[in-house]
Amino acid sequence: MTTIQETTPAALTLQTLETPAAVIDVPRMQHNIRRMQDRMNALGVRFRPHVKTSKCSQVVQAQIAAGAAGITVSTLKEAAQFFDDGVTDILYAVGMVASKLPAALALRRRGCDLKIITDSVASAQAIVAFGAEYGETFEVWIEIDTDGHRSGIRPDEAALLDVGRVLHEGGATLGGVMTHAGSSYELDTPEALAAMAEQERAGCVLAATRLRDAGLPCPVVSVGSTPTALAATHLEGVTEVRAGVYVFFDLVMHNIGVCTTDELALSVLTTVIGHQADKGWAIVDAGWMAMSRDRGTSKQKHDFGYGQVCRVDGTVVPGYVLSGANQEHGVLSREGDADPDIVSRFPIGTLLRILPNHACATGAQFPGYHAIDPHADTGTWSRLHGW
Amino acid sequence: MTTIQETTPAALTLQTLETPAAVIDVPRMQHNIRRMQDRMNALGVRFRPHVKTSKCSQVVQAQIAAGAAGITVSTLKEAAQFFDDGVTDILYAVGMVASKLPAALALRRRGCDLKIITDSVASAQAIVAFGAEYGETFEVWIEIDTDGHRSGIRPDEAALLDVGRVLHEGGATLGGVMTHAGSSYELDTPEALAAMAEQERAGCVLAATRLRDAGLPCPVVSVGSTPTALAATHLEGVTEVRAGVYVFFDLVMHNIGVCTTDELALSVLTTVIGHQADKGWAIVDAGWMAMSRDRGTSKQKHDFGYGQVCRVDGTVVPGYVLSGANQEHGVLSREGDADPDIVSRFPIGTLLRILPNHACATGAQFPGYHAIDPHADTGTWSRLHGW
Repeated sequence: MTTIQETTPAALTLQTLETPAAVIDVPRMQHNIRRMQDRMNALGVRFRPHVKTSKCSQVVQAQIAAGAAGITVSTLKEAAQFFDDGVTDILYAVGMVASKLPAALALRRRGCDLKIITDSVASAQAIVAFGAEYGETFEVWIEIDTDGHRSGIRPDEAALLDVGRVLHEGGATLGGVMTHAGSSYELDTPEALAAMAEQERAGCVLAATRLRDAGLPCPVVSVGSTPTALAATHLEGVTEVRAGVYVFFDLVMHNIGVCTTDELALSVLTTVIGHQADKGWAIVDAGWMAMSRDRGTSKQKHDFGYGQVCRVDGTVVPGYVLSGANQEHGVLSREGDADPDIVSRFPIGTLLRILPNHACATGAQFPGYHAIDPHADTGTWSRLHGW
Repeated sequence: MTTIQETTPAALTLQTLETPAAVIDVPRMQHNIRRMQDRMNALGVRFRPHVKTSKCSQVVQAQIAAGAAGITVSTLKEAAQFFDDGVTDILYAVGMVASKLPAALALRRRGCDLKIITDSVASAQAIVAFGAEYGETFEVWIEIDTDGHRSGIRPDEAALLDVGRVLHEGGATLGGVMTHAGSSYELDTPEALAAMAEQERAGCVLAATRLRDAGLPCPVVSVGSTPTALAATHLEGVTEVRAGVYVFFDLVMHNIGVCTTDELALSVLTTVIGHQADKGWAIVDAGWMAMSRDRGTSKQKHDFGYGQVCRVDGTVVPGYVLSGANQEHGVLSREGDADPDIVSRFPIGTLLRILPNHACATGAQFPGYHAIDPHADTGTWSRLHGW
């Protein structure tokens, strides 16, 4: 048994941070960005990363620099932030509702090429009515439901053409169709993922075909989730792909089988603050406020509790997880049995890093990230919070 | 069946907010503060609210105004914020570790009467060594484990006296003992809660007695959690109580049985953005980014999913919950069966309020609260984020 000790340069940098802290391993992040962009290039599609994972300017700039064509956002606040950073081609991928049209209009009036989405006649009517009132031609994509997990119109539903006509005849730009096969998160074999990727592709292409056959325009066919983007064998008929969490990956993605733990670029730096030796527990200062309450691995093949324990240099300590969490306390323990050597293995003051279940949720707990790069200055990258 | 419509003044104010938004019902909050303070006064103890629930200056000021004697914090950032607001008597209720002593020293040097805690000889030694080096007499309380749920020294452990002696003989001020019976969250009958309150009280008093019998000082005996504070029948030997979530209450507390839904003071304002009529779903713009991933009611007697649906005036819509959540999408559905009238019952654009499982976790998702008070101006109250 060795006590956890670290003397690499990155580890020394981390020694200076207050804990808990969110840490981005920049070389891993750049590898992930490169991996996805290369794959999209090989598949012959544009790539529009979903920036809801990082909500961070420096991360988005790295995605754009690698070849991303526009971005996807989950809030209009993200759209405003990244437009201010110079990104103009932005898809707001949550169904538009009347009360948010003034904010969308304001962005377009400032020069942002904002696209919005809808999956209902009622919402489409609200968009065209508002557009007519303010003299704005909104670009609208229709959301397609290819896997039954959330929003969207099924590819074979009559409503698809109704919505298309309301938009097109009402003076909006019918820009295309988009779908997100979020149920891919429930799969964990290459075969099932490839099948879901094909289902997502085929459904979205069918919707586009039906619109075009009805004489309606549909230039864009946009699909994507991290698992399906990495599992798709071909993307015939698709013009662009969206994915978000790939930029950091996380334990949920690891369990799905689309990354290794060596590719996980986000972790939470934490300090051991105590023990319950009889129970084999070390108590750390990363509780759920730091890790988030996301227990996305709880129904997967490997339940990591609130996260996988790593040494401060980022190497995994096999078999040790955060098995419990209160607001500012995490319970670190060995999977399966109590470690009688927990106190000497992880003495008070030991710095550790915890890989999260879900990078989007864990990132959201922090105002900023500490970016660690052995080849560049370490910096603090701020992160959007709220709406 | 009536469509959800609202015309009260508070509802009109809420119409102007962008969604999702965190809303505090100020009269309910003031009622909760009064209820707890009155109870503590009747039990003859000081009350030191835990401000980790709100992390909000206006809420803390209301607690102080009602009679609170000092506050409890979960991070040193909270301590600094609320000290700047004028609160001097602050207990940092997470085990102190060497790397955080400089920040604690800085607060004390600025005049903050900061108390810190420990549950180990190693940490106690670090505190006294640091205090000696910098000429600072830290006030330290010993954390007691009265229910086995997390940190602390058991009342009958030999280590209690060891830690007491290290602190007292090392020049620190041994200020007392404190405990938190967090396992009260797993109970839901008045009898079990009262028994846990007595276990918490008796254990902490025993620890104090052992210290005093060994010739060590122990002026403070501090106990508390919201359920045990409200269930205790007497607090003999206790000098102060701590509790946090009572200020807002939440669905977890409702299931435990210490409040009614009419006492829940925090909710999330949301807008219906779409439907999946076949499934009986309305889609709202409060996903887990707004509600948090906390599923604290999932193992309780009533599982509310991600929250209880209310009309915009705050009245409960019985039987409707957020049954699912993605990052910016919530799935609203009827418990038990699909509602065939979901589209007409909750049309697109409908404003609703969602009561959260866990107020501490949901509040943390927002940079600020919208405080709604029919007798005063509505305001935005900012909330601390991060460490």
